[in-house]
Amino acid sequence: MIRRLTVIGVGLIGGSLARALKRAGACQEVVGCGRDEAQLQQALTLGVIDRYELDPAAAVAGADMVVLAVPLGAMAQVFQAIAPALAPDTVVTDVGSAKASVVAAARQAFGEPPATLVPGHPIAGTERSGVEASFAELFEQRKVILTPLAQTDPAAVARVRTLWQAAGAQVVEMTVAHHDKILAATSHLPHMLAYALVDTLARMGDHDEIFSYAAGGFRDFTRIASSDPQMWHDICLANREALLSTLDLFIKDLQALRQAVDHNDGAYLLEMFQRAKQARDHYMRQFKQ
Amino acid sequence: MIRRLTVIGVGLIGGSLARALKRAGACQEVVGCGRDEAQLQQALTLGVIDRYELDPAAAVAGADMVVLAVPLGAMAQVFQAIAPALAPDTVVTDVGSAKASVVAAARQAFGEPPATLVPGHPIAGTERSGVEASFAELFEQRKVILTPLAQTDPAAVARVRTLWQAAGAQVVEMTVAHHDKILAATSHLPHMLAYALVDTLARMGDHDEIFSYAAGGFRDFTRIASSDPQMWHDICLANREALLSTLDLFIKDLQALRQAVDHNDGAYLLEMFQRAKQARDHYMRQFKQ
Repeated sequence: MIRRLTVIGVGLIGGSLARALKRAGACQEVVGCGRDEAQLQQALTLGVIDRYELDPAAAVAGADMVVLAVPLGAMAQVFQAIAPALAPDTVVTDVGSAKASVVAAARQAFGEPPATLVPGHPIAGTERSGVEASFAELFEQRKVILTPLAQTDPAAVARVRTLWQAAGAQVVEMTVAHHDKILAATSHLPHMLAYALVDTLARMGDHDEIFSYAAGGFRDFTRIASSDPQMWHDICLANREALLSTLDLFIKDLQALRQAVDHNDGAYLLEMFQRAKQARDHYMRQFKQ
Repeated sequence: MIRRLTVIGVGLIGGSLARALKRAGACQEVVGCGRDEAQLQQALTLGVIDRYELDPAAAVAGADMVVLAVPLGAMAQVFQAIAPALAPDTVVTDVGSAKASVVAAARQAFGEPPATLVPGHPIAGTERSGVEASFAELFEQRKVILTPLAQTDPAAVARVRTLWQAAGAQVVEMTVAHHDKILAATSHLPHMLAYALVDTLARMGDHDEIFSYAAGGFRDFTRIASSDPQMWHDICLANREALLSTLDLFIKDLQALRQAVDHNDGAYLLEMFQRAKQARDHYMRQFKQ
């Protein structure tokens, strides 16, 4: 049971977590914090939080659990604001989509990241944002990845694990580097490709006509290009190295595909398409949600 | 009214067209033709066709309308088989996803493509294939692109237009080159990217683990990588030049994106993501189906 949970950044993710924990009876009090008072007021009206503070240091005072649910680009600033006010036994976790950058931000603020810091990432979300889009079921049967550091206190990890399980999630642990590599491949690279594809087409001379012939496959393929540009700007820069490695792998493969088309190499194309279809169909069967 | 419609290739597209025209009362008799007699027998049982022939020349005898709904890789062979048997006033159309290659295949068989040939392409389909997946509503409110040539008889175009309208489709006309360019951008390139992405990930060392963390965005993004590899092999080779041009545009844009990530160029990334989101949201509102 969490006595006082402080959620810094009460948007889709932070708001949904607060709702889920309240519904599960897993915390007594939720303190919201953020820069937009109107949003906090709305979170209060919706019953997502019990009270709010505009100052992060005031918000974490007396909390036994602090969740940073702010954009990746704001993590460093929040760590710096809460560092002086944090009690030694307050557990801190975050929901950032890239973990090395969060650890680096904590290092800047704390010198060495404290033993009570448990970096985390729920693999969940919708295209919508803001507390009005939050709902208690967002994390049900979703994976949450925790990436504890060498110095992280196992008791702190256990408490963050319990928090996410109370929200209905499946919790797994891995290293920061492994998380960043996996997310670069399954999430960050696909977003880059969707954005780049739409942008390439939008800059073609007859783009209005081009889009008018797009069928269902195109709509599915580009859905993620409707995601929040600022968030993806932050993720790109935060997971720069892992993203670059994955982009390089992909560009190399795409160039090989281009060459096969250029050389009429039907055998290469057929084999590659078959391998990809097989992998996707296999993965769909195995990991169907 | 079509007196005798011959459908060569009674699969998802050919079967759905036959069903739609029968339902609309737009043709008296449907003759099926194909290489797989079991499929034709099933089409007969399902009432999709009225009878069948295994020999294309026999199938087109006495037909006033012939639809080639075979894979792109089989077009040349079918044109060659029907060329000697075709009556001078029989209208011929096809459903191939790339048009220059179909015209080239007709040229091989006929010398000059006949005035009764109206190349066409319905922008419709599902991930399933075969006559058992066919349904009369497939083309309702879908676009069908006709690409008549300089020598094509306007009366033949009008008859093919009427055929597709009877199936519920919206018919537009454009040149072969323009069709191939537009489809390369909205359909062929996205399929290449989806196949290449899944293949890149599948060849990473920890691919099973990687796929297990893929969320909904990844599933949507890669849905088209579950399409028929042989069909896409054919399309790639059939629309080789337009696909290469579009691939080159995209690879250039992707390399610029890579460079922006490498150089921490946040302004470039934000601007590009915003432009793409805006284009997609705009297109979604305008062309919602």
